[in-house]
Amino acid sequence: MKLQLLLTGNELMSGHTVDSNSAMIAEFLEQSGFTIHRKVTIGDELDELINEMRELSQDTDVLIVNGGLGPTIDDLTAEALANLTGNPLIENPTARRHIEQWCQRRNAQLNKSNLKQAILPEGIEILPNPIGSAVGFSIEHNDCLIICTPGVPSELRAMMKDSIVNMIQQRHPDANPPDTIRLQTFGLGESGLQELVRKRCPDWPEQVTLGFRAGLPLLEIKLSITNPAHKDLQQQCLGKLQELMGDYIIGEQSITLAQKLITLLAEQNRTITTVESCTGGLMASMLTETPGASTAFEAGFVTYSNAMKTKMVGVSPELLQQHGAVSEPVVLAMAQGALERTEADYAVAVSGIAGPDGGSEEKPVGTVWIAWGNSTQLQAQQAQINMPRKWFQQLVAALGLDLIRRELLGITDLPRYFRKKS
Amino acid sequence: MKLQLLLTGNELMSGHTVDSNSAMIAEFLEQSGFTIHRKVTIGDELDELINEMRELSQDTDVLIVNGGLGPTIDDLTAEALANLTGNPLIENPTARRHIEQWCQRRNAQLNKSNLKQAILPEGIEILPNPIGSAVGFSIEHNDCLIICTPGVPSELRAMMKDSIVNMIQQRHPDANPPDTIRLQTFGLGESGLQELVRKRCPDWPEQVTLGFRAGLPLLEIKLSITNPAHKDLQQQCLGKLQELMGDYIIGEQSITLAQKLITLLAEQNRTITTVESCTGGLMASMLTETPGASTAFEAGFVTYSNAMKTKMVGVSPELLQQHGAVSEPVVLAMAQGALERTEADYAVAVSGIAGPDGGSEEKPVGTVWIAWGNSTQLQAQQAQINMPRKWFQQLVAALGLDLIRRELLGITDLPRYFRKKS
Repeated sequence: MKLQLLLTGNELMSGHTVDSNSAMIAEFLEQSGFTIHRKVTIGDELDELINEMRELSQDTDVLIVNGGLGPTIDDLTAEALANLTGNPLIENPTARRHIEQWCQRRNAQLNKSNLKQAILPEGIEILPNPIGSAVGFSIEHNDCLIICTPGVPSELRAMMKDSIVNMIQQRHPDANPPDTIRLQTFGLGESGLQELVRKRCPDWPEQVTLGFRAGLPLLEIKLSITNPAHKDLQQQCLGKLQELMGDYIIGEQSITLAQKLITLLAEQNRTITTVESCTGGLMASMLTETPGASTAFEAGFVTYSNAMKTKMVGVSPELLQQHGAVSEPVVLAMAQGALERTEADYAVAVSGIAGPDGGSEEKPVGTVWIAWGNSTQLQAQQAQINMPRKWFQQLVAALGLDLIRRELLGITDLPRYFRKKS
Repeated sequence: MKLQLLLTGNELMSGHTVDSNSAMIAEFLEQSGFTIHRKVTIGDELDELINEMRELSQDTDVLIVNGGLGPTIDDLTAEALANLTGNPLIENPTARRHIEQWCQRRNAQLNKSNLKQAILPEGIEILPNPIGSAVGFSIEHNDCLIICTPGVPSELRAMMKDSIVNMIQQRHPDANPPDTIRLQTFGLGESGLQELVRKRCPDWPEQVTLGFRAGLPLLEIKLSITNPAHKDLQQQCLGKLQELMGDYIIGEQSITLAQKLITLLAEQNRTITTVESCTGGLMASMLTETPGASTAFEAGFVTYSNAMKTKMVGVSPELLQQHGAVSEPVVLAMAQGALERTEADYAVAVSGIAGPDGGSEEKPVGTVWIAWGNSTQLQAQQAQINMPRKWFQQLVAALGLDLIRRELLGITDLPRYFRKKS
């Protein structure tokens, strides 16, 4: 079964609108075992629209058209479909009733613009829109089911759920939804990981599809099967990955580093404090973006200047002068000072040179020191992260959180991202 | 001149990734007077890729291919281009040098996956990638300039800026870039603003295109002309908007709220401190994302628990017990305590209920108190922001920074976002 998508709208061709509809459509379809084969996006131009619909419908089993159902003159989908099918445009009584009721609910007068949305090609089937004034519609043409849907995301979502997925399922009952396990990982690059899998699992079964999605800071790994008979194989592959990647796996599904850390801290009835120079509050912000962060996080210090490292967390001015703010003794003192002042169980402290200025020959832009641990044992490591300021900050903040995660899990090995450097 | 876009990647066909690259490409092109005519998106399948590149290149002057340059086996763009052009895949010395240097900067070992990114069709021109390991490349085929670009947004952005737009401009010097003035605004919604313009400027000239782009937290307004003869008209429209919007305009071009604030503070030789409960470090993080923030920002407090509001900035436990953490007296005391402890000139303090839990009948989720000012005068206001946790935090952080911006500019009127509530 081949399924294609035609998106229309001038706003999609300019830089003004990011298309989130096609990902939404894909997600609904994927859950039911359908995959979009190809997407085409064009502006609001009648001839282009007719040509594109003709070509696509000749080459596909299901064509979903998105956009162009609104009340304005640049909404051309109905006209294009009429032209393509040779069916005249007529007032559709179901659509008219829908629009009348929609206006009534809003105490609004029916106007000419609204009524344009009831003028549709003869022979179509109406797809109800539970939210907006524009109904959707479908028709068989060239042996292809053409489904026309509105561009407003909330309306599209409701219609995908209520009728469109069902409609496609009825026409193609043999679809096979994939079964996907997603792993979130931190600290290994995509290429390094693929290399690892290739080397250590040369007999990876082709029935289990391995996919990656790089985010900052996490890398997602996906293990998909399409045949339930391969569930064991999928579990074996999961086991292999867990063995290979071990403590670089943060968790399953869409868990974040901060969520994992908050969960671990809550489970162990422990708290954390953050002391930030170069990340300027980002570690605290990542933690507190997580609902329920207050169970494990009470306080964070943003000690951006030397004076404030002294004043807020008690780093001695002599230490700062002797070693500089970006140094092992200073990050250790920052962490120590925060532990004393907050009585938190764990602390993580970072100090680095985010750039673009502030580097020296000895400590170039990208140099960062991180200290972490508890009042019994604090340790520190240096990293060199050559990335633009914003990503430098994001990656350093993630490193800081990851180190506490490792500590909580009792992992004593230094993670690879430090080992590489030494 | 006809320009088309081919996006590749299985992640774009599933529901997991929203394509923001094509909007970014469109925006860069638009600024130089180029419009994307049509976009096609397909998965990582070699034959499809070759066919699509063949068909598109026969029908277009410039084809930008995005994605498929990574190190993994499903990155197929180079292979497809080699197949299409008949040029063999060879190791490109420029690309190899780039990858070696990229690995060196990371202290990483060059591996087979990395080296795959240097195996490129003969006869291509290399487009440097200042960030990632994958170089871009271009070639003339079928009278079409084919430009292959990486899928990682940051890398794509850098390359669009550094080389790709120039390359297209050199081939098509007759483009007519619009002359656009961009205004960054905070505190007015898009529909309200459109209404305002329609009512107060009924004679808006059609030669000056008015565009909006809603971001969080800023709303960008664009005034574009395509004919230089309309420059005066554009300036008149700018004047009208400045009159209409006054102090809701943060600045021109792509300035951020934090940049504006850091600039104003630096100009007036003043400093700021932040005290954050519900935003959990986000205000500090926004400020320190700005290069040069250290001239105006020395310290931030993340006082997430009541105990830490007392310990870190001296809010009295009685005050907390009597009024609750989300209250006028408490945010005032937070700001006052931070001013005393840091000797900063200005302070902003926030305490609110970000949700999803923690609300009560009296103080529902979304309630927030903000205090701001200097040691001579502090004031506080309440707002109700009914948004999901992450957006709530972003909007509250922006409100806090905006209030100090207004103070520094001597604006004494309470902004509309508070006035609405009272």
